[in-house]
Amino acid sequence: MAQFGALTSGGVKRLTLAPEDKAARDLFRQWMEELGLEIAIDEIGNMFGILKGKNEDQCIGIGSHLDSVPTGGRYDGPVGVLGALEVTQTLIENNIKLNSTLVVANYTNEEGVRFFPDMMGSLAHANPNEVSNYLKTEDKNGITVDNALKEIGYKGKMKCGTINYNHFIEIHIEQGPILEEKKIDIGIVQGVQAIHWLKLTLLGKSAHAGTTPLSARKDTFYALSKLSCFARELCNEIDNQLITIGSIDVKPNAINVVPEEVVATLDMRNLSDANLQQAKNQLEKFMATDDSFSHITVQKEILVNVPAVTFNKEVVDAIDKSCKQLDYSSYKMHSGAGHDAQILATRYPAAMIFIPSKNGVSHAVDEYSSPEQIEKGANVLLHTVLHLDQ
Amino acid sequence: MAQFGALTSGGVKRLTLAPEDKAARDLFRQWMEELGLEIAIDEIGNMFGILKGKNEDQCIGIGSHLDSVPTGGRYDGPVGVLGALEVTQTLIENNIKLNSTLVVANYTNEEGVRFFPDMMGSLAHANPNEVSNYLKTEDKNGITVDNALKEIGYKGKMKCGTINYNHFIEIHIEQGPILEEKKIDIGIVQGVQAIHWLKLTLLGKSAHAGTTPLSARKDTFYALSKLSCFARELCNEIDNQLITIGSIDVKPNAINVVPEEVVATLDMRNLSDANLQQAKNQLEKFMATDDSFSHITVQKEILVNVPAVTFNKEVVDAIDKSCKQLDYSSYKMHSGAGHDAQILATRYPAAMIFIPSKNGVSHAVDEYSSPEQIEKGANVLLHTVLHLDQ
Repeated sequence: MAQFGALTSGGVKRLTLAPEDKAARDLFRQWMEELGLEIAIDEIGNMFGILKGKNEDQCIGIGSHLDSVPTGGRYDGPVGVLGALEVTQTLIENNIKLNSTLVVANYTNEEGVRFFPDMMGSLAHANPNEVSNYLKTEDKNGITVDNALKEIGYKGKMKCGTINYNHFIEIHIEQGPILEEKKIDIGIVQGVQAIHWLKLTLLGKSAHAGTTPLSARKDTFYALSKLSCFARELCNEIDNQLITIGSIDVKPNAINVVPEEVVATLDMRNLSDANLQQAKNQLEKFMATDDSFSHITVQKEILVNVPAVTFNKEVVDAIDKSCKQLDYSSYKMHSGAGHDAQILATRYPAAMIFIPSKNGVSHAVDEYSSPEQIEKGANVLLHTVLHLDQ
Repeated sequence: MAQFGALTSGGVKRLTLAPEDKAARDLFRQWMEELGLEIAIDEIGNMFGILKGKNEDQCIGIGSHLDSVPTGGRYDGPVGVLGALEVTQTLIENNIKLNSTLVVANYTNEEGVRFFPDMMGSLAHANPNEVSNYLKTEDKNGITVDNALKEIGYKGKMKCGTINYNHFIEIHIEQGPILEEKKIDIGIVQGVQAIHWLKLTLLGKSAHAGTTPLSARKDTFYALSKLSCFARELCNEIDNQLITIGSIDVKPNAINVVPEEVVATLDMRNLSDANLQQAKNQLEKFMATDDSFSHITVQKEILVNVPAVTFNKEVVDAIDKSCKQLDYSSYKMHSGAGHDAQILATRYPAAMIFIPSKNGVSHAVDEYSSPEQIEKGANVLLHTVLHLDQ
């Protein structure tokens, strides 16, 4: 799968609905067809491979996503999709017929790099009323999700939300260092951090870098710098708070001109909705009161605002039981990243299985989990499916 | 002149050797020809209009530049070129025959936006040995200065440095607020700040914004933010120090990825070479010792390094005398910006005449000096030329 969008540095660039994503989808579809699964594609390009069970009323979903960030790794997403496929193949090869219908899923645009918001496919699945808005979303070149889907042949006919899971389980790499540091096989994910994405546009005034005294400047980049330092202080003060400034665009971006405009994003996360709110309040207060902002106009746009999620106890317990059966070491933890299972959990009982990430690295080309670690994750998924099927 | 590259917002975008610059040059040449001046163009496209004097051994140069920054005003540069032309026309219309040959000049690429370094034309005039290097310089699209000159028909045959000034005088807008605040007609410029342009490439590691603990991050943008705040502290501590971070490019520039690379520029200026060196030393020390840089690799490139310049006393005195004769208020000051006269001063006796800038604004579309203020500058230039001619 990693051949599609392969970077010479070892990682992948497989932006959602790009030609590389189409190639990955085509291969995934071929593999599902080879297993005899029924293929369904919904309006937003979510792909499903369906293995009918004995009982039409029961349904277990397993899967993740195949898209990546621009300098991404091979494992973030595909481990969950291909792990789900492997579990399905194992059931078929061993003639194990489930009571539940088993659905293998690949969700569209989990990463949110090309189109806002991230986790768009699972959001559309859990909130079918929002689908028409998502389809109109444009990338930087003005191409809508709808047109991008049609261009690669993945605009499906099935209405979003048609598939009703009784349970949903996602395997994913941890994307952090905890499991590796603790030498643990499996992370049993209890819930997901709240995520808040804020886009700030700071408007000041361009001015000559050599002749304009500091007191006469409306320096948007200096204001952003001070905000960035303050945000780091907040992370040290507020429990479990993370703030990242990842995207920065400056105008006119000339060496000898004080920047008149800065557009920057803040990615804010916390296990606790209350703590996150506290961080947001303090940032607001800083921008309203700090000297560096006194001549700067601030425009704010909330791009993403997802509250903290607590996963379903029945699914979490099934994962826990499976780890014990298999004699794998496990650790109960929260996810720092957003995931499709987090979104689906707002509508269906869901939980996640984490496997270790080498050096905690993710969203980078040297992301790595070993075949043995991935195998353990897939074994836990298989046993969890069997437990939930009863 | 402001029609060439006119922006709807009122300013101009007339990058050096672009079609807009060619159009401005063509009109300037036409005006010089209408006055009967002899036209000469050197290898780097510097344009000269020559009015022969009685004494072949004496030469006074007056002029500035016609190029602009991307969101520039109408006055930075053209006031000095057109003011020089007006002085020449006045001498001709009044049948005043000078002893000295008078040369009206338009220097190539003063702004340094399209090609490095800035003040390239005057540098080539003062340092003819460097011309071949300047001609090879490429813009972002790989077009060399040499090819850009040929494309617009301004690759001249005259060797750089052929014209030997006995004195050079440049009128320019102040680009700062001092004259306006003090309600002064004319700034008599004693010298120019030292300028140091440093390009920094910070190399860290991209990482997931939601799962990577602060302690495991190699966050290049946080390092730049802290450097930016420290640079502002230095400006407050060291006399006459200015530091501007005007250009910032971040990779991969994604909301949920800790930036693995930042390329940023520092524009550092001071009246005193020693003070500027102190600021440079302290920034070096900060990057070597601050925690935010402990896991960051820093690559440095010096783009421009021009020591402070003290202007010629004879020329400064002639400007001073002219202001008194004309009963204009005047103020002895230093220039915060780099200018062609600063470069020419390294080879020829030179000085500058400043006129007020409304609100101190420059390198911005609402740059403004009134016709009356410009007229006073040109009158001082006329009288200064007459004094130096004797």
